[in-house]
Amino acid sequence: MTEEINARTVREWGERYSNWGRWGSDDQRGTLNFITPERILAATAIPRSGRVISCALPFDHKGPQTGVGGRYNPIHTMLADGGDALCGAQNLPGGFQYADDAIAMPLQCGTQWDALSHVFYDGKMYNDRDISLVTSRGARANSIDQIKDGVVGRGVLLDLPRFTRNRWLEDGSRILPGDLDACAEAFGVTIEPGDIVIVRTGMMTRCKESRSWEGYCGGPAPGLSVLCARWIYEREIAAIATDTWGVEVLPNETTDCFQPLHMISLRNTGLLLGEIFDLDALSEACAEDRRYEFLFVAAPLPITGAVGSPINPLAIK
Amino acid sequence: MTEEINARTVREWGERYSNWGRWGSDDQRGTLNFITPERILAATAIPRSGRVISCALPFDHKGPQTGVGGRYNPIHTMLADGGDALCGAQNLPGGFQYADDAIAMPLQCGTQWDALSHVFYDGKMYNDRDISLVTSRGARANSIDQIKDGVVGRGVLLDLPRFTRNRWLEDGSRILPGDLDACAEAFGVTIEPGDIVIVRTGMMTRCKESRSWEGYCGGPAPGLSVLCARWIYEREIAAIATDTWGVEVLPNETTDCFQPLHMISLRNTGLLLGEIFDLDALSEACAEDRRYEFLFVAAPLPITGAVGSPINPLAIK
Amino acid sequence: MTEEINARTVREWGERYSNWGRWGSDDQRGTLNFITPERILAATAIPRSGRVISCALPFDHKGPQTGVGGRYNPIHTMLADGGDALCGAQNLPGGFQYADDAIAMPLQCGTQWDALSHVFYDGKMYNDRDISLVTSRGARANSIDQIKDGVVGRGVLLDLPRFTRNRWLEDGSRILPGDLDACAEAFGVTIEPGDIVIVRTGMMTRCKESRSWEGYCGGPAPGLSVLCARWIYEREIAAIATDTWGVEVLPNETTDCFQPLHMISLRNTGLLLGEIFDLDALSEACAEDRRYEFLFVAAPLPITGAVGSPINPLAIK
Amino acid sequence: MTEEINARTVREWGERYSNWGRWGSDDQRGTLNFITPERILAATAIPRSGRVISCALPFDHKGPQTGVGGRYNPIHTMLADGGDALCGAQNLPGGFQYADDAIAMPLQCGTQWDALSHVFYDGKMYNDRDISLVTSRGARANSIDQIKDGVVGRGVLLDLPRFTRNRWLEDGSRILPGDLDACAEAFGVTIEPGDIVIVRTGMMTRCKESRSWEGYCGGPAPGLSVLCARWIYEREIAAIATDTWGVEVLPNETTDCFQPLHMISLRNTGLLLGEIFDLDALSEACAEDRRYEFLFVAAPLPITGAVGSPINPLAIK
Repeated sequence: MTEEINARTVREWGERYSNWGRWGSDDQRGTLNFITPERILAATAIPRSGRVISCALPFDHKGPQTGVGGRYNPIHTMLADGGDALCGAQNLPGGFQYADDAIAMPLQCGTQWDALSHVFYDGKMYNDRDISLVTSRGARANSIDQIKDGVVGRGVLLDLPRFTRNRWLEDGSRILPGDLDACAEAFGVTIEPGDIVIVRTGMMTRCKESRSWEGYCGGPAPGLSVLCARWIYEREIAAIATDTWGVEVLPNETTDCFQPLHMISLRNTGLLLGEIFDLDALSEACAEDRRYEFLFVAAPLPITGAVGSPINPLAIK
Repeated sequence: MTEEINARTVREWGERYSNWGRWGSDDQRGTLNFITPERILAATAIPRSGRVISCALPFDHKGPQTGVGGRYNPIHTMLADGGDALCGAQNLPGGFQYADDAIAMPLQCGTQWDALSHVFYDGKMYNDRDISLVTSRGARANSIDQIKDGVVGRGVLLDLPRFTRNRWLEDGSRILPGDLDACAEAFGVTIEPGDIVIVRTGMMTRCKESRSWEGYCGGPAPGLSVLCARWIYEREIAAIATDTWGVEVLPNETTDCFQPLHMISLRNTGLLLGEIFDLDALSEACAEDRRYEFLFVAAPLPITGAVGSPINPLAIK
Repeated sequence: MTEEINARTVREWGERYSNWGRWGSDDQRGTLNFITPERILAATAIPRSGRVISCALPFDHKGPQTGVGGRYNPIHTMLADGGDALCGAQNLPGGFQYADDAIAMPLQCGTQWDALSHVFYDGKMYNDRDISLVTSRGARANSIDQIKDGVVGRGVLLDLPRFTRNRWLEDGSRILPGDLDACAEAFGVTIEPGDIVIVRTGMMTRCKESRSWEGYCGGPAPGLSVLCARWIYEREIAAIATDTWGVEVLPNETTDCFQPLHMISLRNTGLLLGEIFDLDALSEACAEDRRYEFLFVAAPLPITGAVGSPINPLAIK
Repeated sequence: MTEEINARTVREWGERYSNWGRWGSDDQRGTLNFITPERILAATAIPRSGRVISCALPFDHKGPQTGVGGRYNPIHTMLADGGDALCGAQNLPGGFQYADDAIAMPLQCGTQWDALSHVFYDGKMYNDRDISLVTSRGARANSIDQIKDGVVGRGVLLDLPRFTRNRWLEDGSRILPGDLDACAEAFGVTIEPGDIVIVRTGMMTRCKESRSWEGYCGGPAPGLSVLCARWIYEREIAAIATDTWGVEVLPNETTDCFQPLHMISLRNTGLLLGEIFDLDALSEACAEDRRYEFLFVAAPLPITGAVGSPINPLAIK
């Protein structure tokens, strides 16, 4: 079927799997609308142990960025520190001393959510909004602050390397809807509407082991096939996150389009995408208790007009 | 009793209410240790409606910072935007276009957690660690990334203006342990070990109404009395957060010490402090359902070596 | 005559005083072309004393910016410092220790040159170039790095407050071509082709005295009348610089156009504009030796694709 | 003689070649004091052609930094651009539109001067000042803004590869005082007190040709021998600049000390050091007119408290 994927089919599927207008013409939350209060409440009933696992990669200069697309790793600087105190540069009453710091970082340099203003084509972004709304002053619609009350819901881990008994999927491996279903079934979990589906490929595991991010950002990678677009739409998935740079298989399945699943699912379906998740600890934890579902909380920073946000996603088991 | 508070008593209370060594000499989590898995599990049973309320102020140039202590409001810049696409500056296959952005911000410029490396005196920070560990390269101990699996637990809102039937507490109003207990009782909630206690003073409400942050950062403010240090220690509170710049009443109750409660509770008790929380929506929500407890999740970004982190705290009711 | 100034006349004058094509269709230097090697050589013969005077305002957090247009004052941070050395955080052989630092700043937040890509209208900038060349990736033409071998030439100070025996010109004072000529004549200097004309209004002197930048950025200010456009064009001036935020009189002489002199002279004449110059020391020095001409050197940082650059202009007398 | 160089001799030479107190205990300009007004005036008489050559490397993301010492390449971002104008996001009267931009950069990431607060040992920097003056708030003494009226004087190019008829000196090549003298003599120029001595090694030429900065920052490099310390002191050199990362030969001539010439000459002699100069155009220009002296102007940005500054050095011939 792959041979049929091209710029035309991508646009066709984009129309077919569109949620534009589904939640009103002023909607800016997209598939997060699938996470109803009832589903949130149900998700809070999942935990059995009270164990919390972070899925965030440390934010620091050792991150994966190499300059691709102008993205750099976080630059952390101190505005005040212990050395200042030793230098006598802090004279607050009572010997009170302090440290303070700052960061400069691309919002998508590490573990992050894409906002619905992150990707577009033909002059439009999610819900028929014009891309001229996204200027140097930020996005006037579909920005990340529109989902400040999210993301809370049922998370499901699809641990593909564990399922296929490999340490990681090979670069270029294409994940099909059938793979996602089979993996879920094998681990005794069903994908339901409003789920936050977390797909582990093991690519980050390999990078950490080899102590090299070579190729991680934009290079060949395992990832979701564009054929998942229909599955995502029909299953009413709320969000997809992976341990890779761009969710999708790279090289993409067509040279006609860059990141065609983004084009279809983010722009048209209104899907929340998460990238650069560190899923190794979660993989271990799920293998231990054999439960691949959890309460999942990953709140974006409500940066006004931002097209993405760094996050520290927490799985509560 | 206030007249007795001075630099000497602050240090005495610091020793009296110290948790140094309580969880081992290598502990870097402080009072978060009170939040056991059992308590987290119990907290997940609190929600009744599945409603989620964010307690974060928007991160943008309209924030409260005015330069005090070298802190500025977030600077959000676009690395790519819709205008670029219109200019023909994006040539990815298939018409794929995108926006990307970056931020520069002090980590404590908005809604945030203080790390246990944020405040110190006499050359030491929490758990007997030397302040020489906090240099231009960041904090080598007690940094925010040490609590990357937090903060999840039971949150309790003490809505003082609603309790006292005022719109906000006056600047300089001193909140005593008895006020906290009385407020909790009035709203039908009890403070328990491991709780995340969220104290609303209404100061931010007033600033928003007056459209002015004048005095918010470091000026006179309502806040906790240093006499709360014992209450915090004995009740085994996990964290305290407020809608003010610095949690404590300002001017401080003694001119001998700056922020004496920080000196005692953060450095010695190992208390997690949250500041600049926007509690108006939470106040409304709790008044509506008359339930002042909730599942509370506020994960810091695990910025390596950082002495604080911006957060988007979520109350799940 | 002022009453006749409107959007139509501004566009007409823009055409009339245009240098588009004058130095070829690929020219990116504009009026700097008037500074020939011969004129540079002549300028090196001006100095009599070897005294050097800087015309730069210090770059720091006390600068004039208040957020207008998203501009902030420079943020200077240390990457390494003496405190680190005292903390034992530097272990280079032989006791070698060091300090290192960084800056974040808008390129036009202080003393600066505007690039010829800074201002435009009707979709075009200097020399008939499309504004779509100026994107998030910077300016692909007319950028500041195109004049990296400048600015060296004959500088002339027109010290208007000294000429009019005031401490400063009042806000809203309109400087006409006749004022410039009269001032030059009074101080015994003639304006010649290729000159860098430095106009002191005293506005910065007043701000420094009052210790307040209130209104400096974008508020009412003394400045050049739009009627100077013809004078600039006919006299073949290479550059104009002032001690104000925007060179031009504010409020502008017409409500039809913002900064009409920029529209005419920068976009069409290709004039280099300098702003936020600190001219107090230069004013004193010229009064002392009664010589209002000097060798002038103000090299921009060749930041690739930048639309402006901070500078430290030096007058060599 | 090299075998005798160690931490002890470096300290001895530091004392021997010290200028501490020479220009008073409050001096913060060091060897720039050698550039008297008379010498500046004499330097203005050097030019014969009026040709200006920039010695700055472009400031952009393609610069030499790779993260060594926390230094990164300049990050240039747009605050407003042509795309915004096309998006209708600029509504100023008369169709006035504009672009604006910002930069974040380590002050020593490209072509730059070291301030006299950049390097220290034994708790002291130039002129017997304590390193505790250099904190997160910047340097309270010996900072770059102290030389805001510099650097103007006679520049001399010592083009070693041209002298030795190589394209560049090999990494690890040690430049001795005799090499400097022989090169000067060969090109018909004499080194005089107050000179700004510019030494070309060709290392940058090689990097540009190979399109790789591999090893440029901190790796093996040609450079001045520590034995030049005496020559610098006795000749009363005002400044030394090179086309390398660190002026000195690397690996250093002793493993006992890192950058021993910095330790002696910057800290004790008070020497201004310039690094990462792009000298290829200057090399060509001097070869063309066979004149290796020029009027040299390289003004630092007067960033308050900074320990270095990016510059655009101009040679005027």
